[in-house]
Amino acid sequence: MKLVKNAAGRLVPTVVNGVKQVPYKGVAKYKPKGNKYGSPIRSCADYPDDGNKVVKNIREALIKAGLKDGMTISTHHHLRNGDVVTNLLFDTIKSMGIKNIRWFPSASFPVHSHLIKYLEDGTIHHIEGSMNGPLGRFTSLGKMKGTGVLRSHGGRYQAVQDGEVHIDIAVIAAPTADPFGNATGDRGPAACGLLGFALADSQYADRVIVATDNLVPFPCTPWQIQGNNVDYVVEVPTLGDPSKIVSGTTQVTKSPDRLLIAEYIARFLDESGIMKDGFSFQAGAGGTNLAFAVYLKELMKKKGIKARFIRGGSTKYLVEMLEEGLTDYILDGQTFDLEGVRSMRENPNHINTSPFTSYNYHGKGNFASMLDAVVLGATEVDINFNANVVSHSDGYLLHGIGGWQNCLFGKTTILAIPSFRDRIPVIVDEVTTLVGPGELIDVIVTERGIAINPKRKDLLKAVRNSSLPIRPIEEIYEEINQICGGKPAKPKVNKKKVVAIIKWVDGTVIDSVYQVEE
Amino acid sequence: MKLVKNAAGRLVPTVVNGVKQVPYKGVAKYKPKGNKYGSPIRSCADYPDDGNKVVKNIREALIKAGLKDGMTISTHHHLRNGDVVTNLLFDTIKSMGIKNIRWFPSASFPVHSHLIKYLEDGTIHHIEGSMNGPLGRFTSLGKMKGTGVLRSHGGRYQAVQDGEVHIDIAVIAAPTADPFGNATGDRGPAACGLLGFALADSQYADRVIVATDNLVPFPCTPWQIQGNNVDYVVEVPTLGDPSKIVSGTTQVTKSPDRLLIAEYIARFLDESGIMKDGFSFQAGAGGTNLAFAVYLKELMKKKGIKARFIRGGSTKYLVEMLEEGLTDYILDGQTFDLEGVRSMRENPNHINTSPFTSYNYHGKGNFASMLDAVVLGATEVDINFNANVVSHSDGYLLHGIGGWQNCLFGKTTILAIPSFRDRIPVIVDEVTTLVGPGELIDVIVTERGIAINPKRKDLLKAVRNSSLPIRPIEEIYEEINQICGGKPAKPKVNKKKVVAIIKWVDGTVIDSVYQVEE
Repeated sequence: MKLVKNAAGRLVPTVVNGVKQVPYKGVAKYKPKGNKYGSPIRSCADYPDDGNKVVKNIREALIKAGLKDGMTISTHHHLRNGDVVTNLLFDTIKSMGIKNIRWFPSASFPVHSHLIKYLEDGTIHHIEGSMNGPLGRFTSLGKMKGTGVLRSHGGRYQAVQDGEVHIDIAVIAAPTADPFGNATGDRGPAACGLLGFALADSQYADRVIVATDNLVPFPCTPWQIQGNNVDYVVEVPTLGDPSKIVSGTTQVTKSPDRLLIAEYIARFLDESGIMKDGFSFQAGAGGTNLAFAVYLKELMKKKGIKARFIRGGSTKYLVEMLEEGLTDYILDGQTFDLEGVRSMRENPNHINTSPFTSYNYHGKGNFASMLDAVVLGATEVDINFNANVVSHSDGYLLHGIGGWQNCLFGKTTILAIPSFRDRIPVIVDEVTTLVGPGELIDVIVTERGIAINPKRKDLLKAVRNSSLPIRPIEEIYEEINQICGGKPAKPKVNKKKVVAIIKWVDGTVIDSVYQVEE
Repeated sequence: MKLVKNAAGRLVPTVVNGVKQVPYKGVAKYKPKGNKYGSPIRSCADYPDDGNKVVKNIREALIKAGLKDGMTISTHHHLRNGDVVTNLLFDTIKSMGIKNIRWFPSASFPVHSHLIKYLEDGTIHHIEGSMNGPLGRFTSLGKMKGTGVLRSHGGRYQAVQDGEVHIDIAVIAAPTADPFGNATGDRGPAACGLLGFALADSQYADRVIVATDNLVPFPCTPWQIQGNNVDYVVEVPTLGDPSKIVSGTTQVTKSPDRLLIAEYIARFLDESGIMKDGFSFQAGAGGTNLAFAVYLKELMKKKGIKARFIRGGSTKYLVEMLEEGLTDYILDGQTFDLEGVRSMRENPNHINTSPFTSYNYHGKGNFASMLDAVVLGATEVDINFNANVVSHSDGYLLHGIGGWQNCLFGKTTILAIPSFRDRIPVIVDEVTTLVGPGELIDVIVTERGIAINPKRKDLLKAVRNSSLPIRPIEEIYEEINQICGGKPAKPKVNKKKVVAIIKWVDGTVIDSVYQVEE
């Protein structure tokens, strides 16, 4: 495997799984050429006039779809850790004796550790998508036959749209669907809210299979997935465990340190002038993020300020803000709790978005860059604000990128991080894996202080008289090293063995993940 | 121009406007090859981070879009006869000195007779789209530089999707839009309901310009047109005359003959057993169609029957049925009156559809074939049930195809026609222009009787004891000829000069329209 140094100074392979790669060239430096992929032209003559595309089971659908060795099969992750469809799918593929599948999920969860045996026996050749928890550990140890490829949600859409990843068969688990293939996630026993992560798959895959446990008469509305893109519909007994698909409730952190971080961020938005009428922000579903939303809500109410839109990951906290008139809209990329699902189903101002609208960098703009403020996490940040979100300081690949890279394009990007975890510093001199360039990261908020990227002179000026603990990042870095007894140990990795690559939002390779030596 | 005989026995050119054509091969006989067109890949690096794509005016947008001689410019017809944007657009193109534009509207209206001067002076080379009224007469007289190409709404989507028609610049008039280009037709001073006819244009054109007279802050919802497909946004003083865009009210026919036809159709659906719980039908906005809907509604109420869905062109009559619980859904392709617009905006069960969902024959099925009954018109029908909808017996091309060809795929297709117009028989021995093959047309309903296609033995059997005047088509044909004093005179046309071609839903050429000799 030949490695070259990219524009970030990181070594990356030039060919991965037999596909030529473009090394990262810098933010907004790589310009795509050519045209989007077009899926095969079909004819209504080959589809039933009555619109009934139901076939007996997944096996029959896969046979009709022409499943063969070496194909690419995609799935989405809206069922999260409750997903049983993906495991059933690969049990079926295994039973058919098919080998060397490239699995292309929009993300994977611990429930998919069921698939490790198929990675071991050659049913699955490799995964392109997040490799969380057990699958990440498996990959880190060099046990996967091919090389993992990690993309952001937007990068996944981009790769499919641009024809970098050709999906042979997409399998879309749908909480409600009709026999024509129209499908929605906002209702049904396994309701998950929306199905945006399957949008690219439905548009660009050669064959599309919808699996549902709630088949309704045509038309299923809203048609988040359009039946006109669907080849076969399959009824399955259940999509999965509803309690693991969406939480009954999402919980605000109880950690005093994290509550402090959340409060700092809310106050920072206020004192910097970002929080003003018509502003917008994005916050996810982690405990710190939820706490931030709660603090911000109180500040907004106190000052009589209304947002134009909030981007979720929606939760009951964002839904409350919508229902109390603190925002005109929620533009939602995934629903994390039952209140989010209900609101999306009932409230026309709770809008269903997709990686196409929100994140695709090879589009005519996207929503992410319009956000006034975005609050994200990270596993590591270096003193130049470069950040890591996929691996830990011990070198293990344990998280996906999600929408994280895409969100960095927001007007003010804030990383909410504890200054150390398990006595290992989170602010480091060099990140284990580079996932986000420091030039796009504006503010680091820890329980020990707030560091503003020196590039953001406007922000530094805006908060110069603030009572908030604004500090140089180097100062926080030194303090943490003293508390933790020094920098983290360098990971024990084999720098000759790349187990996964990290794509940037434009499809170039920003960094490599190496095999961990146990 | 070389002409060959196609599978319907019609002479059609093999090359039109320099593009090779496939002669019609029969219903469901032509199978497309290859992949859909993919528009150029763009990068967010070339679009404003803040999402503001507003430019000064249409001229500036056209310059930025790279307008050149010979390009293809598309427009939609949701503004109908109130449209001022298309005329403003071509005034601008003319003022820029650009020549030989292929105009690719989804339909044209009498208001567009303004463009005849641009057809004469070479600004516009030819029209691909319906050529209603004055433009049709101009074309029929052989005055257009190129050859007209008429497609159904579904055929237009198919042609763009398949790359047969490459749109350089799409100009989308939008009753409401935001600076990012998200647009909707369901609100604003020029509200027209929906914008489905511009969907293909927004997805596949190289450059997309949205023109609006109601710019709102991001996000404009619902985003019927997605800003992620839009390059530039332009504010214009007005999109047009609202009273000509949608009617205040739509009017049921007062003609006793047409009321009789409408009543016959409603009774036919009842007596044939088509009208039953969960059934579906489509009816347009013509006076006869509206009367049919009124009769059918009364029958449904009387018998306690509820439809699953109705397809519109929506009007207050369909909206009443939705609101009175006589149907679960309206699946709407265009709104014809203000009640239709209101209902679409307010009622989540009044659903916005597009030629992609409803009509595209090169898709994985479409909605049209699922309809239990479809009521359409025609200018001529022959005794083999072949029908014409674009020209009159005098040879003049005066109407577009609209969704007519696509709707023929419904389970039972009914043509509602007066038996003669201006003492010219409508049932003929041979149609002037073949637009729909008789094998897809099931029932002809005139004021003198109902003719059922002999292929539909099931229907003949179902109504064998009916009191309705079921008659062989030949018998009605003979009776009309006697009343009118014989068959219509053959049109005086030059069979060597094709002024327009008629495409079938699969992109093949089903017939030619010839130059009329005055």
